Amino acid sequence: MMKSKKRVDIIKINNGVKQEVTDEIIVEKVLNVYINKNYYSSLMYTPNEKIELALGHLFSQGIIQSMESVKRAVETSENIVCVILDYDLEEDLDERRVLTSGCAKGSIDMRILEDKDMKPVENNKQYSAQDILLLMREFNQKSELFKETGGVHSCAICSSKDILCFSEDIGRHNALDKVIGKALRNNIALEDKLLLATGRISSDIAIKAARAGIPIIVSHSAPTDMALDLARKSNITMVGFARGNRMSIYCGSDRIIV
Amino acid sequence: MMKSKKRVDIIKINNGVKQEVTDEIIVEKVLNVYINKNYYSSLMYTPNEKIELALGHLFSQGIIQSMESVKRAVETSENIVCVILDYDLEEDLDERRVLTSGCAKGSIDMRILEDKDMKPVENNKQYSAQDILLLMREFNQKSELFKETGGVHSCAICSSKDILCFSEDIGRHNALDKVIGKALRNNIALEDKLLLATGRISSDIAIKAARAGIPIIVSHSAPTDMALDLARKSNITMVGFARGNRMSIYCGSDRIIV
Repeated sequence: MMKSKKRVDIIKINNGVKQEVTDEIIVEKVLNVYINKNYYSSLMYTPNEKIELALGHLFSQGIIQSMESVKRAVETSENIVCVILDYDLEEDLDERRVLTSGCAKGSIDMRILEDKDMKPVENNKQYSAQDILLLMREFNQKSELFKETGGVHSCAICSSKDILCFSEDIGRHNALDKVIGKALRNNIALEDKLLLATGRISSDIAIKAARAGIPIIVSHSAPTDMALDLARKSNITMVGFARGNRMSIYCGSDRIIV
Repeated sequence: MMKSKKRVDIIKINNGVKQEVTDEIIVEKVLNVYINKNYYSSLMYTPNEKIELALGHLFSQGIIQSMESVKRAVETSENIVCVILDYDLEEDLDERRVLTSGCAKGSIDMRILEDKDMKPVENNKQYSAQDILLLMREFNQKSELFKETGGVHSCAICSSKDILCFSEDIGRHNALDKVIGKALRNNIALEDKLLLATGRISSDIAIKAARAGIPIIVSHSAPTDMALDLARKSNITMVGFARGNRMSIYCGSDRIIV
């Protein structure tokens, strides 16, 4: 397994005093994703959970809808994951992409934004605000460790009481794709789960969640207006600034019981 | 001018008490960049400094090397900037891209990473650590304001004593492209300037800086190992965790006088 941290010699300056020390920095690698032996895309990422990342990425990009169409996903070398589908890809995937504000996987298919038929989330199960804050507390503790080495983002998929999948990455999008990939691989239905995120919720994150049918997004930070519009259209509950005993509900408050 | 913040009605929960309040959220828009009337790419961004963003983006992508090749850059509608070059673009720009960890403009040309001829920065002018920390303090104060509304990233281009260009955006890359675009438009040479950044320095940010010939990168946060490798190869000084009276020098410490 590749390491996600690395030791380097650095010079620290503190109040004008120089000191040579050894410090840990975060490792960034390229992952090349192939579909049916054809090159699809390259991602800069924190080197763990490669297969989950590749699967989640393809799911978020709308290439796969479930694991049913995936014959197998294999790591063919240290920096290549090859996903074999049970059908040929016909359309030109390079066609039109929009570069997004988000970290890693900064490219989403522009057509998603224009897709009027994007299905709203149907599940209207309710969740207690207190449970959400407890989950967020556990999530923050899990995230703390890695954050210290230089700011990675974390995402989690949760039931109302438990964190089921947790991932971290230098990129916000990678962290989300990794947990989605994990849920796919483990056959965890997303339609009644919560998504927890350390980072800002921009439109591309909201689109990924909508595509996955996740009914609630809870962030430590804030959504953008476009993400909020998308959440409203997709019947997603958007919660921001979930910290300590507080949270801000931006839309879909019917799902939250106080 | 479009607004970069927007007021929305939200529900706040604090210690189990619900309250309806009005809050500000950050606005996210799509900017479509055209070259010679042909569609080039779409960026999700904080709607200000559009022309600077378009120019900086094209510079970072290696499409333009200076303003000399730019006949004009115009905002043809609220979400379109059209850059007219004094030559035709021949090569297929969509060819091979790598999706990066970074915020906004998550796509960089893969060939850059393979480019063995990427010129190292030649300027070895020295800067005082104290001056850098003073600049960083001023930079942080400028950044604070907007950070409160939900975490935008800031970048600045500085001489040894002054902040010359400052930009902010929901995306780390956009913020950098905006300041580079500003420097280009204002004919500010970058070869003896410092780049200040609030965010992490990943490989794509280091590549943009190297392409612009910026000799020093100073961040509030940490670099990744790949960014550090690139900085070493490009003879760039990499400073991280520049906060208060401290900084960590990851490479190129000869340029820093303590």
